[in-house]
This record gives sequence, C-alpha cells and structure tokens, in this order.
Amino acid sequence: MTNDRLARQIAFVVEIDKLKAVLRQNVLTDRSRRENSAEHSWHIALMAVVLAEHAEPGIDVLRVLKMLLIHDVVEIDAGDTFIYDTAAAADQEAREHAAAERLYGLLPPDVAAQLRPLWEEFEAGASADARFARALDRLAPVLLNYHTEGMMWRANDISGAQVLARNRVIERGSPALWRYIEPLIHDAIAKGWLKP
Amino acid sequence: MTNDRLARQIAFVVEIDKLKAVLRQNVLTDRSRRENSAEHSWHIALMAVVLAEHAEPGIDVLRVLKMLLIHDVVEIDAGDTFIYDTAAAADQEAREHAAAERLYGLLPPDVAAQLRPLWEEFEAGASADARFARALDRLAPVLLNYHTEGMMWRANDISGAQVLARNRVIERGSPALWRYIEPLIHDAIAKGWLKP
Repeated sequence: MTNDRLARQIAFVVEIDKLKAVLRQNVLTDRSRRENSAEHSWHIALMAVVLAEHAEPGIDVLRVLKMLLIHDVVEIDAGDTFIYDTAAAADQEAREHAAAERLYGLLPPDVAAQLRPLWEEFEAGASADARFARALDRLAPVLLNYHTEGMMWRANDISGAQVLARNRVIERGSPALWRYIEPLIHDAIAKGWLKP
Repeated sequence: MTNDRLARQIAFVVEIDKLKAVLRQNVLTDRSRRENSAEHSWHIALMAVVLAEHAEPGIDVLRVLKMLLIHDVVEIDAGDTFIYDTAAAADQEAREHAAAERLYGLLPPDVAAQLRPLWEEFEAGASADARFARALDRLAPVLLNYHTEGMMWRANDISGAQVLARNRVIERGSPALWRYIEPLIHDAIAKGWLKP
C-alpha cells in the first residue's frame, strides 16, 4: 500500500521534470537563451520568500510557495501561453484543464486534492495568497525584460500600454511592488524598449 | 527607507537569475541537455511538498522549502561541485563562504539574517528539516540518472559502491525514501549503468 502510494508520488516527480523543457517568452538576464518554466517557478518562489513583507498582511507564505511551485505544471501538456497573445488565450483554459486531469491524476488522490485546488485558486486570483503569487508571476518577466533592454518586448513588438495594462494586476497583490515597477515600465518606454 | 530596502531585495532577485546558468552533472530525463541549479532547486522544492509525509514527523515544510530554494544560490560564484569529485570538494567550503558573503550581502541585513542561517543549517544537516532537505537534494539526481539509463554516471565512470555510499544520507532524512531508492541503485548496477 505504502509502496504503491510512494510509487505514484515518484511517478509524478519524474513526470514534472518535463517542465524544464517548456520555454517562455523571455530571456535570462545574460541574454544567452530563453527561460524555461521550471527555473521561472524557482525564481518567483524565492521572490515570495524575499518579498513577502510587501504582500497584504496575513498571507500564508507556505500556501503561496506551494502555488508558485505548481502554477505552471499544466504547461507540460498545454504549453506556455504568452500573456500578450490573445489568440492563444482563447482555448488556454480547456488545454490546461485537460493537462491538470492527466498530471494531477498521477498522484495519490488525497495529494492531488491538496494541490489541484491551490492551482485553481492561483488561476482565479481570488485570495490574498493567490493575488500575491500572481503579482510575482507578472513581476518576474517585467524585471527580466527591463534588465535585457526589453529584448523580448522588442522581438514581439510590445507596447508600453500593453505592459501597463497586463501588469497592473501586480497592484492587487502588492501595491508596494507596483509602485516600484510602474516607473521602470515608464523608463522602458522612454528608452525605446517598449513602443510608446 | 522602504524604497532602499525594496531596491536591495530586487537587486538580490535580479542577481540570483544567474543560478539558471550554473550547470550540474546530470541531464534532464529527455536527455536533451544538462540540468541547471535553478530548475533543480524548483524540482526538489516541489518534491518536498509531494513527499513531506515520508520525512520525520514534525518537520516544518515552510522551513524545508526555504532551505531548498536557497541551498544552491552560492553556486552563482562558487560553481556546482560534483559530489563524486573529491578534489573539488577540498576548497568548496571556502569558495561557498565567500559567495555567501557577497550574495546575502546584497539583501537588507535582517532578510540575510533570516536566510543565511537556513543555508548553513542545510549544509550542516543537523536538524530534521535539513536532513529531509538533503535527502531530496540527493534523491533527485539518482532519479534523473536512473531514468536516463545512468547517462552521467556512465560518462563519469561512477561505481555502484560510490552511489550507495554517497546517497546513504537519504536514509537519515527519510528511511522510506531510502527503502525505495536503494533497490533502484542495485537495479542500475545489474543493468550495467553503474560499475559493479
């Protein structure tokens, strides 16, 4: 019984290795290559530890970390959807739902029942924990783009208005982080890294 | 004051992006490339969430996650030290100490004073939390090697005796995980993926 349970947990652990091969629409600060969703997940989880004081009072950092560690796992089947690609967003929910069925289905049911609702909570953004997690998920690519002179913003012909509109959600999770990042976006527009 | 504090936190967040460029001595399960230390850190953090029930009773999963998220950050300056490379291990401690001085020094002192002792606790392996974290750090490369037919074991001419000796520490953090992984190592020896 225990062996079958552990075997299912290990099968999930081995399967999620594939997240390291899912590429995102931004590059590392050294500009050597595109970032993958596994290392991105590590980055924002550690950001949550370092920046937790800027969230709403009373957030549960352990829940936030669990959300951030699993938030992109569905991309193993569904792929990464670029936040400025409105066409791909149309069927994103259906693709990610099917992915969640398969991937969480690898786990013992009680473990799946602990993790999948955390992913759904993250997606809905309806709690303080999820709002902070979502703020970090948005903050990271803005920082990486800013520190590469807007490399992937320019490659994708993104405008300042798009970045301001899509990332304003950072303010809902952390007004302090938005006050920090909004001037950086305006600076990127001024420097020509974003279309005006 | 707040702005300077947040600016230091963000400087650390941007700096640790470099961990994504530190390569380890194992490959992904798809064998496409070597793993980096950032995505490895994500993987074992999510392993801690999924496998926590196999640790000693009473571990603090939040502390374990913080340890795992930061445990390799010093490699940005000190590089990854292959656990079967005894020559490189000789000055590893001095290199990692200097790295910790610089990297944690980027943070506001109170944040550094929260995180650096967690890394030292991980290194010492002297608490139940650290023993479990270290078990996962060892378990992950064994799993990845096993699922690639011992690709990097064979490339580095590693023996079964070496793998059994170096990974026996898994038992200290989780007897259940050791009972699961020890037969896999013997199976790898039987299959010729490890020297007898």
